[in-house]
Amino acid sequence: MLRAMTLDRLPTPCALVDLDRLERNATAMSQQARRLGVRLRPHVKTHKCVEAARIQTAGGHGGITVSTLAEAHGFADAGFADITWAVPVALDRLDECAELVRRTDRFRVLVDHPRAVAELEAFAAAQDFPFEVLLEVDCGHHRSGVDPDGPAAVRLAGSIHDSPHLELAGILTHAGQSYRCGSRAEAAAVARHERNVMVAFAGRLRAAEMTVGEVSVGSTPTVSAAEDLTGVTEVRPGNYLFFDAFQAAIGSCRLDEVAFSVLATVIGVYPERRELVVNAGALALSKDPGPIHVDPSCGFGVVVDATDQRSIPGLRVVSISQEHGVLRSDRPLDPRWQPGSRLRILPNHACLAAACFDRFHVVRGIEVVDEWRPVRGW
Amino acid sequence: MLRAMTLDRLPTPCALVDLDRLERNATAMSQQARRLGVRLRPHVKTHKCVEAARIQTAGGHGGITVSTLAEAHGFADAGFADITWAVPVALDRLDECAELVRRTDRFRVLVDHPRAVAELEAFAAAQDFPFEVLLEVDCGHHRSGVDPDGPAAVRLAGSIHDSPHLELAGILTHAGQSYRCGSRAEAAAVARHERNVMVAFAGRLRAAEMTVGEVSVGSTPTVSAAEDLTGVTEVRPGNYLFFDAFQAAIGSCRLDEVAFSVLATVIGVYPERRELVVNAGALALSKDPGPIHVDPSCGFGVVVDATDQRSIPGLRVVSISQEHGVLRSDRPLDPRWQPGSRLRILPNHACLAAACFDRFHVVRGIEVVDEWRPVRGW
Repeated sequence: MLRAMTLDRLPTPCALVDLDRLERNATAMSQQARRLGVRLRPHVKTHKCVEAARIQTAGGHGGITVSTLAEAHGFADAGFADITWAVPVALDRLDECAELVRRTDRFRVLVDHPRAVAELEAFAAAQDFPFEVLLEVDCGHHRSGVDPDGPAAVRLAGSIHDSPHLELAGILTHAGQSYRCGSRAEAAAVARHERNVMVAFAGRLRAAEMTVGEVSVGSTPTVSAAEDLTGVTEVRPGNYLFFDAFQAAIGSCRLDEVAFSVLATVIGVYPERRELVVNAGALALSKDPGPIHVDPSCGFGVVVDATDQRSIPGLRVVSISQEHGVLRSDRPLDPRWQPGSRLRILPNHACLAAACFDRFHVVRGIEVVDEWRPVRGW
Repeated sequence: MLRAMTLDRLPTPCALVDLDRLERNATAMSQQARRLGVRLRPHVKTHKCVEAARIQTAGGHGGITVSTLAEAHGFADAGFADITWAVPVALDRLDECAELVRRTDRFRVLVDHPRAVAELEAFAAAQDFPFEVLLEVDCGHHRSGVDPDGPAAVRLAGSIHDSPHLELAGILTHAGQSYRCGSRAEAAAVARHERNVMVAFAGRLRAAEMTVGEVSVGSTPTVSAAEDLTGVTEVRPGNYLFFDAFQAAIGSCRLDEVAFSVLATVIGVYPERRELVVNAGALALSKDPGPIHVDPSCGFGVVVDATDQRSIPGLRVVSISQEHGVLRSDRPLDPRWQPGSRLRILPNHACLAAACFDRFHVVRGIEVVDEWRPVRGW
């Protein structure tokens, strides 16, 4: 949908996607995956837009990663036929999983618990078709996944491998601890660890005479920084298409590569306390605290010029409530700021900020060239 | 829409509204307003549902408060004809304000800056009809509003009062500092201060021969705790219809009065670290840090039984990522928790958690009796 409009005509608050930056980010990650010799199966959870996923998968094998069944349904509707649901399967939604297995070429679910395997097995037996299952491995994030060094992990893999109705498609991990890194060098070290854990665990399974097709890793910080992924088959970064203030702070990208921003209008000016209020609060930016481990005073995003996205020195989003964002300047307020002025905020966490909006205005420079509608819900 | 369904059939994560509790909360706040001798103009920003607002306004004058123009449009569509937009007006959306003035009996906007008054005045002159304007007063929250003790405040009120196209409808404040209280007694003190500031400022304006019709105050903590609001004409609490873990922690309500919860399913069980993972993360609970000033380890909500909502001692939501909620127990994990088990979480901040959902399942006990669709966007 092409509309002859510039962004100064958009009502605020609204979400902007910088298409030039997004395309560059997509190209760079595709090149990085090629350089590393792995397939790219981008995670679509950050944007949840079919148009964005088409750009991400251009030239690739077309496979994607999703975080919700709503995404799986929405992207299957749009023709995506190779989908991994990279959150441990919720056992009360197996009917929907079966539907997705039927309507796609490949729909993989994730497990890390014997009870989940047993219920999947019983369900697949009743349906009489095989489920492709990935075993989640904990490579140090300690959120979910089996302990790759413990005896239970190999037993659980074996129970999937030996099941007549389940197929052990491979192993999967997410090195979420990379979000605690302070630099690209630290993320590279986490990427090495993530790879090493997975390659070693795949070796243990193969030594136990199991086939391990997929060895899947990925987070935007680790894949951006990875130097060698020998033994890994695919990577699943997602945030990289947008990036955000957090990723810039930990070295995954530069601020001028961030492709998602929130356009806001000044609704209050308080020179005596060097503060502005804008109409973008917690419902437009999310309350993600951002990279406080590297910048304790980061606030709730990076303030940039509405038009050219140059950063505005000294102006921080110091607090947010539902519909108010409070910006404070470390110097006397520039008299350019008046009620009605506009600015953009690069949010701390694009995945959460993007989820606040039911549409994204896609821009090239200041021209609005498209409107994308993300999938919502679960 | 009545459906014969119990909540064990609902896919998760999903949002539940406990109608019995909600109705009691509505009645209690109506009684509190009557006892205080003020009109209740409930804020609908927490739920954004027409059905909920009808319950809130039953027996009252029908006026509501909104936080966005999307709410104003949505509630006007449903017949609400007396609406206050209690966020300082965004000057790039005056056309929409004019439309709302035309299609309702009363649509009031909020200002605190001479530039906003001048632009509203010019706009109203061009449209040739009067705008009802409320002057926002800062009673100590220091987010927005004029300083009621400074000379500029009376001048600004005078410029509205003297305008041929604007009508000074009154003054409005929000004692947001009440959210820093630790108890009902502290909130009562803030309520006294909020009232005193507003009554004194109304007195200054009247001494300057201005008419001050409305003296509007309100936040759920202050209105819940207020003992005397003499001189105030209306209150605008909103959160009280749902309440949440935060309001319970600061004494606005009891936990068993919280009417909004998120139903979630266990997708991971890790007895060795006494942790569960559920499928409700930051996109279902929001990342609101909660009442950390009274309970630094509050986590991201209060875990309760899925069916009877009894609290589950020792189990806290210690961290959340996009779709994962990590719960940790301070004692060995109860073996009842297995993949597929369900529980409910009373979120820290109902306004932000409710905004994560495009529908609420309305329940009485375990029976799903209705489905409400909130207004979304701006």
